[in-house]
Amino acid sequence: MSGAGHPGEPGRPGEPGRPGPAGRTAPPVRRRGRPTSAARAAAGEAARDRILASARTEFAERGYDRASIRAIARGADVDPALVHHYFGTKEQVFEAAVEVSFAPAREGLRALPPHTPGTLGGRITRFFLGVWENPVTREPLLALVRSAVNNETAARILRAQVTRELMATVARELDGPDRELRVELAAAQLVGTAILRYVIKAEPLASLDAGELAVRLAPTVQHQLTGPVGERLREG
Amino acid sequence: MSGAGHPGEPGRPGEPGRPGPAGRTAPPVRRRGRPTSAARAAAGEAARDRILASARTEFAERGYDRASIRAIARGADVDPALVHHYFGTKEQVFEAAVEVSFAPAREGLRALPPHTPGTLGGRITRFFLGVWENPVTREPLLALVRSAVNNETAARILRAQVTRELMATVARELDGPDRELRVELAAAQLVGTAILRYVIKAEPLASLDAGELAVRLAPTVQHQLTGPVGERLREG
Repeated sequence: MSGAGHPGEPGRPGEPGRPGPAGRTAPPVRRRGRPTSAARAAAGEAARDRILASARTEFAERGYDRASIRAIARGADVDPALVHHYFGTKEQVFEAAVEVSFAPAREGLRALPPHTPGTLGGRITRFFLGVWENPVTREPLLALVRSAVNNETAARILRAQVTRELMATVARELDGPDRELRVELAAAQLVGTAILRYVIKAEPLASLDAGELAVRLAPTVQHQLTGPVGERLREG
Repeated sequence: MSGAGHPGEPGRPGEPGRPGPAGRTAPPVRRRGRPTSAARAAAGEAARDRILASARTEFAERGYDRASIRAIARGADVDPALVHHYFGTKEQVFEAAVEVSFAPAREGLRALPPHTPGTLGGRITRFFLGVWENPVTREPLLALVRSAVNNETAARILRAQVTRELMATVARELDGPDRELRVELAAAQLVGTAILRYVIKAEPLASLDAGELAVRLAPTVQHQLTGPVGERLREG
């Protein structure tokens, strides 16, 4: 994760020192002497980052429905008007927060070497479990799942971003007219595992060693991505 | 589903006619003449069924956190005290509602012929999709998922019932010390598919023909149930 602009984070290049004391930053805090436009821009960016971090916490803790712009502003120590100024509606704040939450996944998937469809299942499985095993990256994902399961707007945003960014990145590695469907069926094995292991906490799955879990999941993820489509089901 | 005691449902055997007009039924409505103890018992059972039906609607629409005994009572046209009388706490009402929601799944799984592990994947897949494709059986399951994802108490109840009833029934058909884990990994493929298809509505999965979907899912469900455990993942 980017550690996006927590208060107390070291200053960025071009900013002459740490952000000012955490006073409300609408309008941006004036420092002694002449504030350069670079300093003003940096302060604005820091406030924007604080708002995003606060939004992710708020959506994680309360879900989309119950999250409020007012609480997000309070958590970021800014005026609610500044939240609207930077992001617009609650829906748009959520969209931005989702985008930040998916950044590591997006970058990780883009870093997969191309043209290795035969090992894609194992790589995606280990990558997915890596993101979910780490509490820092797990929490915002859990928050997204909670919001999307309960709210149609949140589901739509998740759908758009997951489809556009993650699924499409993986699908590019595959051939065939059904490659998007294949990616979704592979994702289903992983998403279902995440729900049962991290949300429902069903045993023995919840306590299984992550390496052993990857070994168990990779073949079916790979099968959905590149395996032959099953014959007709046998009638039993 | 059992159509549990909707008002206006034909009377049960032993009850001399339809339930009385939908007046509050605590205490049970007295009919003209002498109410037999059988009639009183039937009226009590009808009220209990109405409470359960109302509870399922309330949990489905508002989720566990926001559901209230008062609203459940209102929906069943009874006094809130009667809800407590029959079921106890909100948690216990939820538990009873979950049990009713899982009844068709439980009965369907029990009806699977034993000793057919080689075709279990296809049969469970078709059974699972059958339950989810039918709106009448899908809605209470969706409600459960929504509640469990958002509330630890609801997750615990779901976990207990799913583990005890459903998973155990399937695991009995398998051999080996890892059979419970296998059932959970197979369930993960199905649960993840349900989330992406019915909740997130990701395309093209959401619009795929259910028969085609079963053909795509059965081999990986079967593999998780009875297949060889994957070799070490290839490093790509």
